Amino acid sequence: MRFLLTNDDGIYARGLSALYQELSKDADCLIVAPEVEQSAVGHAITLFRPLMVRRVKKDGVFLGYAVKGTPADCVKIGIRELSERPVDLVVSGINLGANVGINVIYSGTVSAATEGVIMGVPSMAISLDIHRDADFSFAARFARKIAAFMLNNYPIPHIALNVNIPALPEEEIKGVVVAKQGRARLIENFEKRTDPRENIYYWLAGETQLSDHEEVDSDACALRKGMITITPIYYDLTRYDVLDDLRERVKDVF
Amino acid sequence: MRFLLTNDDGIYARGLSALYQELSKDADCLIVAPEVEQSAVGHAITLFRPLMVRRVKKDGVFLGYAVKGTPADCVKIGIRELSERPVDLVVSGINLGANVGINVIYSGTVSAATEGVIMGVPSMAISLDIHRDADFSFAARFARKIAAFMLNNYPIPHIALNVNIPALPEEEIKGVVVAKQGRARLIENFEKRTDPRENIYYWLAGETQLSDHEEVDSDACALRKGMITITPIYYDLTRYDVLDDLRERVKDVF
Repeated sequence: MRFLLTNDDGIYARGLSALYQELSKDADCLIVAPEVEQSAVGHAITLFRPLMVRRVKKDGVFLGYAVKGTPADCVKIGIRELSERPVDLVVSGINLGANVGINVIYSGTVSAATEGVIMGVPSMAISLDIHRDADFSFAARFARKIAAFMLNNYPIPHIALNVNIPALPEEEIKGVVVAKQGRARLIENFEKRTDPRENIYYWLAGETQLSDHEEVDSDACALRKGMITITPIYYDLTRYDVLDDLRERVKDVF
Repeated sequence: MRFLLTNDDGIYARGLSALYQELSKDADCLIVAPEVEQSAVGHAITLFRPLMVRRVKKDGVFLGYAVKGTPADCVKIGIRELSERPVDLVVSGINLGANVGINVIYSGTVSAATEGVIMGVPSMAISLDIHRDADFSFAARFARKIAAFMLNNYPIPHIALNVNIPALPEEEIKGVVVAKQGRARLIENFEKRTDPRENIYYWLAGETQLSDHEEVDSDACALRKGMITITPIYYDLTRYDVLDDLRERVKDVF
């Protein structure tokens, strides 16, 4: 088995290292990850400059490829060029911080999994709901279970799994739930400042909040209750539920 | 009425100028657009550096704000900070090149409309299916019609419209169709090169192709047949059709 491992925190991130340690027990893992941190890059790809690729060693041993690009770039070039044999599974993570709610569309971690699916390879993203001092050991072990589940029990193409793990001791985790992407989002707040040359600039601040309309079966709600969430996602933004209604309205006007 | 206009080709792009000319007939239009071209940035936002904002004049008259950031940044800061009054509609475009199929998730143009919806404002993206020597006049007039349609006939929150216009003389356009996002995608091809210092680098090349499984009611197919396509989109990647099945399978394993 060949797994392609990537992330958006960069090739030296501890979460990626924890993933590699654990998944290497089942598969030959190739790391292709961004040279530098790429959070909130969304589903960006690099078209107008070349992608620099560097072989990275750790303690004298080949660790993987560092790409000066986005997580989606890493998955594209990893599958197409850098892996000398077919990739069976793309695993992106372990991200420092949850990827739930509307915020998922800003996520480099999740976009890597979506890109894997576009390339026809089963893919998953895994994130831990903490921003510092993370213990990745349980999340890495759980990633191994999900990988086995995808390969053995879930041979469905065109779907990636977005997995979020609460930052709790294993015995306090309440269970595993399949959840939909909720409406939790960044409530932004721009701080306006003036630079030494009198130019105006802004810092995007703010924090993620649950929506007032948050449904109880959403990823953000379930995660907050201490459950591991699994959300099946893909690359289609179409709002199918309104297609027929919109057709009627368009017919009347155009 | 206050419209916020943006794009991913940059504040000086002809497509944005055509949009401004036409939409200004109905509304007070504020331009907040990237300082430089931002194609294929996906739904990126800028978190780890400040956003520089510059007032831009044209022939001595205020044209709009240029932001050193992505289209999604422009919409966030435009609505939250730069518009001195509430925005009634976000319009992103007119993009040079169609935004259909899987490629939509790489699109800065479309991500601006999605961001508008996240901020609670009706939004649309409009793209013209040509890459050079574009005549934007019909597309701009059609954008005005869609804007009126959205405000008068389509008061549905949480939906953006992704509109694509064939690059044909007006009389050859076959009609207007509501389509779903298809599976047309970039079939990539990395060109491997060596720089003067013997470093390896890659250029992402390739072209967009219709999938073998492309459905006839997809955006890419309809556009190719000479129709204007309108696709209702939003920010939810959940694959709802498999939620129940996945729940059963997860229950058996975890």
